[in-house]
Amino acid sequence: MQIVDPHTVDVDGKLYSARHILISVGGRPFIPDIPGSEYVIDSDAALDLPSKPKKIAIVGGGYIALEFAGIFNGLKSDVHVFIRQKKVLRGFDEEIRDFVAEQMSLRGIELHTEESPQAIIKSADGSLSLKTNKGTVEGFPHVMFATGRRPNTKNLGLESVGVKMTNNGAIEAVDEYSCTSVPSIWAVGDVTDRINLTPVALMEGGALAKTLFQNEPTKPDYRAVPSAVFSQPPIGQVGLTEEQATKEYGDIDVFTANFRPLKATLSGLPDRVFMKLIVCAKTNNVLGLNMCGEDSPEIVQGFAVAIKAGLTKEDFDSTVGIHPTAAEEFVTMRTPTRKIREHPPAEGKTDHDVKAAAGV
Amino acid sequence: MQIVDPHTVDVDGKLYSARHILISVGGRPFIPDIPGSEYVIDSDAALDLPSKPKKIAIVGGGYIALEFAGIFNGLKSDVHVFIRQKKVLRGFDEEIRDFVAEQMSLRGIELHTEESPQAIIKSADGSLSLKTNKGTVEGFPHVMFATGRRPNTKNLGLESVGVKMTNNGAIEAVDEYSCTSVPSIWAVGDVTDRINLTPVALMEGGALAKTLFQNEPTKPDYRAVPSAVFSQPPIGQVGLTEEQATKEYGDIDVFTANFRPLKATLSGLPDRVFMKLIVCAKTNNVLGLNMCGEDSPEIVQGFAVAIKAGLTKEDFDSTVGIHPTAAEEFVTMRTPTRKIREHPPAEGKTDHDVKAAAGV
Repeated sequence: MQIVDPHTVDVDGKLYSARHILISVGGRPFIPDIPGSEYVIDSDAALDLPSKPKKIAIVGGGYIALEFAGIFNGLKSDVHVFIRQKKVLRGFDEEIRDFVAEQMSLRGIELHTEESPQAIIKSADGSLSLKTNKGTVEGFPHVMFATGRRPNTKNLGLESVGVKMTNNGAIEAVDEYSCTSVPSIWAVGDVTDRINLTPVALMEGGALAKTLFQNEPTKPDYRAVPSAVFSQPPIGQVGLTEEQATKEYGDIDVFTANFRPLKATLSGLPDRVFMKLIVCAKTNNVLGLNMCGEDSPEIVQGFAVAIKAGLTKEDFDSTVGIHPTAAEEFVTMRTPTRKIREHPPAEGKTDHDVKAAAGV
Repeated sequence: MQIVDPHTVDVDGKLYSARHILISVGGRPFIPDIPGSEYVIDSDAALDLPSKPKKIAIVGGGYIALEFAGIFNGLKSDVHVFIRQKKVLRGFDEEIRDFVAEQMSLRGIELHTEESPQAIIKSADGSLSLKTNKGTVEGFPHVMFATGRRPNTKNLGLESVGVKMTNNGAIEAVDEYSCTSVPSIWAVGDVTDRINLTPVALMEGGALAKTLFQNEPTKPDYRAVPSAVFSQPPIGQVGLTEEQATKEYGDIDVFTANFRPLKATLSGLPDRVFMKLIVCAKTNNVLGLNMCGEDSPEIVQGFAVAIKAGLTKEDFDSTVGIHPTAAEEFVTMRTPTRKIREHPPAEGKTDHDVKAAAGV
């Protein structure tokens, strides 16, 4: 398949022409070129293993790495996760990052932080070893890399017709309507490397259909896009992290809860739930909601409607809880865990004044 | 414990006096007085059975009956539910009532509808038989009645100090601030038989504390109180049923979904999910949300915030889905299942005009 000019696509020698061409070819797993990388598998191949591995190394700290760590841990594999950074899930709320790592460790997943593979060595018995910056870890039947994904933009003829791309190989959207640098060629989804989620691609596609065919120019709206990580326990989030909210708004109130859900109390499981609401101290708007624990992705969806619409802490507080659920905790948070008073840079102030909540 | 005058309580002979007295003594299971009722157990005793019953009769079609039917069915008891009416869960959305009954039947619970026990007979072998309006069903080690609850108002001295009660024994709240007919005596929770839910009692108590002690007269707000039934599958609901919305608003759009959740697809279980959104055709406000299926109670809590705040279908539609969840269905309903155009009585019109959605 090749794009041969701004209005023509060549599919196996047959030419198709159209007023508009939409590129939505997605991405694929990316494995860095290190010695022995030919021995490793990616997340696609991990789903096709003929049997459950007794032991597996997973390289990466993003959501795909964590989701597969949970799957293999659930299958009782001995799971080792190698993370280049100090923490998993860059970009997520810091407390959520700490909480999920702790919960995964409690379930028996071994997290090797700040440990990055430099080479994969195949032993005489066929098992794989990881040579890292810290030493060598041996005895893996399989090593899976979840080290990012790259847009599928190779060999489409995009360069030859003048479609601009980033260094990463992503198509650059030159305006907010998903147009590329070639006015008749459009791009949505992971191939543009904006927010790489299926429902976001659906939103972008829906907006583009309105723009092109319903005479109703529509921009996708990237505010308060909720998302989930299907780790064990899973994560759900919408809006800002505490760090983003502090940077953007300065003065925020943070409400947290950390408890054993009823189900775990009855069964004696060690599972815990962590929940966090971030509220603008000035307007009382709920800026962000973060949760890690069972059912988080299902729970967060409804709250995402509330947060996207700009509802306030009062709107949350005046909603009656559904008892007994974990979700009711989000409408019964009465006392802030902490009040952060760090006037935003825009106001030209630099005093950092973080107060504990006790009675302040 | 006795209330001896509007400001004094007698506890085991010791007198306590106070400016205000709050009655919040709740309710207890009610078993009608029919022949053999001394052999039956209530929901409290059902939790204390020494072993799992091989077979159990549950009398009642309310949420307690359904929850216990689910518990005993989960324990592999042979469960028979006897319901006086045609359907379970009076007051719930009609489609939800049908759906949950069908799902319970699929799980092996036998529903005896329009069949009401008239007597319980104990056999020589100790087993119990139910004589109903339709015949006799035999061989139950246990018969549980879940035939409603009654306020715990007996022997409190309420009548003697002049607190007005309903025929049901509930304390009458004479104003919206939870005051009884005696100005210094207040009542919240199930004892007042308003909406008998723990979080509603909490709301009433919180409002009363503000009214009495914070100089801030506060009425509990009974609009859009969400609730759940922990049947198998469970139910969650907030706002109006389709029947209530039709009666109150006349013109409504109804969006429904009925599907097998991903989990059931993978495991091969027959479980299904039913979801319904009810939207005011004139204002586009979401008037009600009803769901039956796994995680319904957790899912509904967040949407309850949105519905309580009066958000519209556009607010739902502009929220990005969390994929893959069941909850995302509520933000991706694009085409109404039906449009009901039944102008409300207030407008003085009587034409009933229910259109199928197809292209209308």
